[in-house]
Amino acid sequence: MRVGIIGVGCSKFGRRDDVTIQELSYEAVKEALDDAGLSRNDVDISVVGSVNTRGYELMPAVPVNEYCGFAGKGPIRVEAACATGAAAVYTAYTSIASKMADVAIAIGVEKMTEVDTATSLAIGGRGGNYLWEFHQYGTTFPAYYAMHASAHMAKYGTTEEQLAKVAVKAHRNAAKNPKAHFRKEISVEDVLNSRYITYPLKLYDCSPISDGSSAAILASEEKIRELGIDDVVWIESVGYASDTSNMTRRESFVGLKATVLAREMAYRRAGIEGPIKEFDIATVHDCFTIAEIMAYEDLGFCRKGEGGRLIESGETDLGGKIPVNTFGGLKAKGHPLAATGVAMVYEIVKQLRGEARELQVDLKNYRGLLHNVGGTGHFAYVMVLRR
Amino acid sequence: MRVGIIGVGCSKFGRRDDVTIQELSYEAVKEALDDAGLSRNDVDISVVGSVNTRGYELMPAVPVNEYCGFAGKGPIRVEAACATGAAAVYTAYTSIASKMADVAIAIGVEKMTEVDTATSLAIGGRGGNYLWEFHQYGTTFPAYYAMHASAHMAKYGTTEEQLAKVAVKAHRNAAKNPKAHFRKEISVEDVLNSRYITYPLKLYDCSPISDGSSAAILASEEKIRELGIDDVVWIESVGYASDTSNMTRRESFVGLKATVLAREMAYRRAGIEGPIKEFDIATVHDCFTIAEIMAYEDLGFCRKGEGGRLIESGETDLGGKIPVNTFGGLKAKGHPLAATGVAMVYEIVKQLRGEARELQVDLKNYRGLLHNVGGTGHFAYVMVLRR
Repeated sequence: MRVGIIGVGCSKFGRRDDVTIQELSYEAVKEALDDAGLSRNDVDISVVGSVNTRGYELMPAVPVNEYCGFAGKGPIRVEAACATGAAAVYTAYTSIASKMADVAIAIGVEKMTEVDTATSLAIGGRGGNYLWEFHQYGTTFPAYYAMHASAHMAKYGTTEEQLAKVAVKAHRNAAKNPKAHFRKEISVEDVLNSRYITYPLKLYDCSPISDGSSAAILASEEKIRELGIDDVVWIESVGYASDTSNMTRRESFVGLKATVLAREMAYRRAGIEGPIKEFDIATVHDCFTIAEIMAYEDLGFCRKGEGGRLIESGETDLGGKIPVNTFGGLKAKGHPLAATGVAMVYEIVKQLRGEARELQVDLKNYRGLLHNVGGTGHFAYVMVLRR
Repeated sequence: MRVGIIGVGCSKFGRRDDVTIQELSYEAVKEALDDAGLSRNDVDISVVGSVNTRGYELMPAVPVNEYCGFAGKGPIRVEAACATGAAAVYTAYTSIASKMADVAIAIGVEKMTEVDTATSLAIGGRGGNYLWEFHQYGTTFPAYYAMHASAHMAKYGTTEEQLAKVAVKAHRNAAKNPKAHFRKEISVEDVLNSRYITYPLKLYDCSPISDGSSAAILASEEKIRELGIDDVVWIESVGYASDTSNMTRRESFVGLKATVLAREMAYRRAGIEGPIKEFDIATVHDCFTIAEIMAYEDLGFCRKGEGGRLIESGETDLGGKIPVNTFGGLKAKGHPLAATGVAMVYEIVKQLRGEARELQVDLKNYRGLLHNVGGTGHFAYVMVLRR
């Protein structure tokens, strides 16, 4: 049973005091429905992804579904930390591939700016229940990724300049994306001169706290034929994995084992061997600059330890061998947790359809890669999309 | 692709100050693994259902999976209010039926007694975002179901005595279930003399606030054959639906439209016409006594308005035509939100296998029915299981 993506939508990311969580969701839902040429009545099941960091909407699927007009449809909420978006797409995908639905919508939505940054970081650190790591040392998310960065620098000689280049690329792309949180280009010097949050990560190495939503409408091949849609981006394969949250139990800090396992599963199912040759576009989980460097390696774009040199080479820029995070990534487009994974689908679909305007990649293989991580790698999803 | 249930587990329900949420989960997980004769390494994906009312574990799947030994496996958390358990079973089911996993475990877990009852009820009322209904009138869950009860009494002449009989049956069964929260038989007089919570619902018309966990291990038919298991309870069909949360938008208060829609989908997929004849056992969502009466009607056990007479007839008792909630129901077994739906699977599997001891039903059709509702009917799942 093949499953295709027939409609995508994405709200403006950023500080969105102007809308409720319901209204924010509807921005993406309406765009996705219009894009698919469907009405809300055509949808069988609505999967709402929301981490719900502010804890205000205990059951966010209820108001979101009611406001968006999906009362009466099958509803479910999913959560997988920062990989919640991909988890929502996964659940929409399995709902169709199992023949429980013909058309499913995956919605990712998050309102995060209503609490202050320190509280958000504390919630993030607490969220994973890192047990004594958080309580004993007060370790928040930048601190966890700082451990990865330090380990990577110590073992492979990765530099702060290389990390900075990930941020520079992200901002350069986001500047051309009207939906991005930050639309300002920055320089390597800007990054290096920004204040340390946790050594070696500085302010501009960190993704922001954003509000935003995104939506993707999936349908079975049979339904797609019935609807007369002939230009479709298919979900070719999905991989998932996890790892411990306790960092003390990790085998290594220079990469994410969950990414490697999820990649192996997704590539095996799609019959992929040499990833750089296979993909026209990749979206990877760059919550911190070091995360993008590790993703290059864990996804097989280069050998372990060579991620720093890959960003320097420019091959992950627009026009390079494998453009990564062309819409600005979590770093500059913004990172409204659950919206992120669904927005990755939005980006790949827009690119594979040739609708990315100034940010358009060259299309040769019509294949794209999605990589969405939760926490410090205790959730990972990898998906291969193909037009 | 047929999907079977090969292992089930359930913790003691009640006030469980003695365990963390991880330890509580593991009680059910260990029993389910032992029951299936599998090790944790045989599981491909773990679906953790948790509403997480206390808001302490922002991302409960992380500590639960790590403690239960599922780090490295595919992880996802789902939530569908009080139907979270069925939603977890649904996601485990679709993961297998879509060929994304061979073996999946659905875990439902909730620790609710750490906050006081008033707070829990307020969270419950707020949880669904009933907008002005909750904020303007302070409507909590008993008040919502009291509206259903009043409407049913006004339209069909249903009596407080009939409601009381639902509670009496629940307590009679729970008294013989060592895992139940309440193991004390009560009389109709006890119920009628208990204090009003919201007219016409009295204390003994309401399910309690409980801690508990439950787990079910599902596998593909192919895997089940490979494992050499030949006595299996199969998931024959699944139905899902929802309705508005705003009560003002409901067509009627005398039943739950979401139940009717989910039932129609599940029965159609299983080819079922006369439900009483088809099922040896049914578990229905009796969060309040009126909810069981409405479920009888909405599931087709009797005509609309005759639910009060059905409980009086004794036909839903052990030994009756269709025994309902043989392990004590939400009312007396307890209602740890996410654990409830998975515990319904536990009950039906135990019954269909003939392992229910003093509470064993007669087996003729080897078919059981599961009905799990979220909120006041804005989530509903109906499943047909068959040995």
